[in-house]
Amino acid sequence: MRTVLGAIRLGHVRFLVLGALLLAGVDAHAQTDPLASWNDGAAKQAILEFVKTTTDQASLKFVPPAARIATFDQDGTTWVEQPMYTEVIYCLERVPVLAKAKPELKDVEPFRTVLSGDREALAKLTMPDLEKILAATLTGMTVEEFGAQVKDWLAAAKHPRWKRSYTELAYQPMLEVMKLLRANGYKTYIVTGGGQDFVRVYSESVYGIPPEQVVGSAGGTKFGYDKSGRPMLVKEPKLLLNDDKAGKPEGIHLMIGRRPVAAFGNSIGDKEMLEYTQAGEGARLMMLVHHDDTAREYAYGAKSKVGSFPEALMAEAKRRGWSGGRLRCWIWSVHVR
Amino acid sequence: MRTVLGAIRLGHVRFLVLGALLLAGVDAHAQTDPLASWNDGAAKQAILEFVKTTTDQASLKFVPPAARIATFDQDGTTWVEQPMYTEVIYCLERVPVLAKAKPELKDVEPFRTVLSGDREALAKLTMPDLEKILAATLTGMTVEEFGAQVKDWLAAAKHPRWKRSYTELAYQPMLEVMKLLRANGYKTYIVTGGGQDFVRVYSESVYGIPPEQVVGSAGGTKFGYDKSGRPMLVKEPKLLLNDDKAGKPEGIHLMIGRRPVAAFGNSIGDKEMLEYTQAGEGARLMMLVHHDDTAREYAYGAKSKVGSFPEALMAEAKRRGWSGGRLRCWIWSVHVR
Repeated sequence: MRTVLGAIRLGHVRFLVLGALLLAGVDAHAQTDPLASWNDGAAKQAILEFVKTTTDQASLKFVPPAARIATFDQDGTTWVEQPMYTEVIYCLERVPVLAKAKPELKDVEPFRTVLSGDREALAKLTMPDLEKILAATLTGMTVEEFGAQVKDWLAAAKHPRWKRSYTELAYQPMLEVMKLLRANGYKTYIVTGGGQDFVRVYSESVYGIPPEQVVGSAGGTKFGYDKSGRPMLVKEPKLLLNDDKAGKPEGIHLMIGRRPVAAFGNSIGDKEMLEYTQAGEGARLMMLVHHDDTAREYAYGAKSKVGSFPEALMAEAKRRGWSGGRLRCWIWSVHVR
Repeated sequence: MRTVLGAIRLGHVRFLVLGALLLAGVDAHAQTDPLASWNDGAAKQAILEFVKTTTDQASLKFVPPAARIATFDQDGTTWVEQPMYTEVIYCLERVPVLAKAKPELKDVEPFRTVLSGDREALAKLTMPDLEKILAATLTGMTVEEFGAQVKDWLAAAKHPRWKRSYTELAYQPMLEVMKLLRANGYKTYIVTGGGQDFVRVYSESVYGIPPEQVVGSAGGTKFGYDKSGRPMLVKEPKLLLNDDKAGKPEGIHLMIGRRPVAAFGNSIGDKEMLEYTQAGEGARLMMLVHHDDTAREYAYGAKSKVGSFPEALMAEAKRRGWSGGRLRCWIWSVHVR
């Protein structure tokens, strides 16, 4: 695995449907090539072609600037989601901090297990256990307090395998795609199953995406006043939007109100977003990131015990490609080189 | 009342707290003055001063471009809300169209009353009646079908008093403020108690505000597939966000994720948004539009039977001004000249 300035560098791009595997060097073009971390394969060409035709007024595939919406799943698509979602790691690592303020938590499950550090016991936590941990660490504070807590944690926390800050584990090729799209009038959005408020803390610095362009799973807040009469918003344990699977297009409609023309995902949770994107008129770009390199990053899939390689999604994509004829760019495989 | 290119022209600006009433002519400056429809009063000066100081890097009140968020209530603030909310008129006028497709509605209340055109009976409709009408006219169709229905209606409907399209009844001075703010790096948002999907249909053409910058009361949608397998989003009668009163700052956090530095409202429903805006650090601009001209537009308030003049809000504003000392721009009165 090569890294560049802290970002995991993905470059080996394989066009899965056609099976074309191209390994041309890219470093010579790094200064001028907007997709310098991508190999000169079909995937890269498709992105460049999409950007070129959708921004060329003479093209039949021209997309007016206002309609240039591109959405990116986050976990596994724009940054590392292994060994578990960064936000879940945050919640677990936040428990000891909570226990300092509330020592009684040490005797209450599931907090006792989390505090024990017993990995076997941790692995057996149930979904209701996890929900209790999320509620305790993600709600009950003002939105500003939460932002500060996440910021502090991100500044110190290190990924167990890569020994780097989580915010350094964004995929360089995806950062390049975002930048290229923005340079061509596209508004880039994160559309994540993760917590909207969590991702908003670092979206600008990591992806160049402002908080208002982060769509994520969102809890309610409650407006009120603190003791001095100052207005405040407190995060509540009430789910307004579960931004995963069907929730992704629903969340896109709620938060953006337009159908994307380009969408990027990596898992079955992105299926509906990709379908919804595809179902619009005119030029469309739908891409899947595929992780298949154990040594330099992670390998997902049936042969691995890690992650959720979208076999089902890929099967559907192929099926749709056969029947729809508009799926030229549906399936791509991007892995670390 | 003077009108300019179909927009109701507000110009007479009165600084209520100080009582300064300035009626200087503005037409001579129309070509170069960004707030040409405003009189040269304290309100106009406060806006110009706010824009100048928050965009001047040498100023202590400088606001970084990314944080330049300005929110505008819609009904009564950026366009006419009399004799009733435009969206409610839409829903009522949509009932006959629905009844053509479903003749059985003619025998079912409250649709029978709406179809009768009996104004006295209409005025007696209860809130549950209204909810049935809203559910029947705002939900059950795809988001694209709804957008097309609203667009068609807006193209033909006329305001009963002004005999103009509803989309022509935006307040020219507020359009100028929005434009001035945008020219200075501000992102302008509509934050309305009205339906998000409704306002999004015309927000770009009327206000220059794209759909993704409209925060409004929002119902859920349901992702599914039509008979041909094409993905679709159907509008559901499920309220996700009641974007009024406390719901405004809550909606702003959900949809924008940043606290505004400037906010504009006209009613008690805007109180919490204005308070939330004010409670941030640094430069702040909070303004109320006050309608007090029966002849040229509408007069709200205790002496009128129209609208909800924010006596309570104004009282609170004065109180906060006395205690807070940061309320220089809190109360303004703008009416049609």
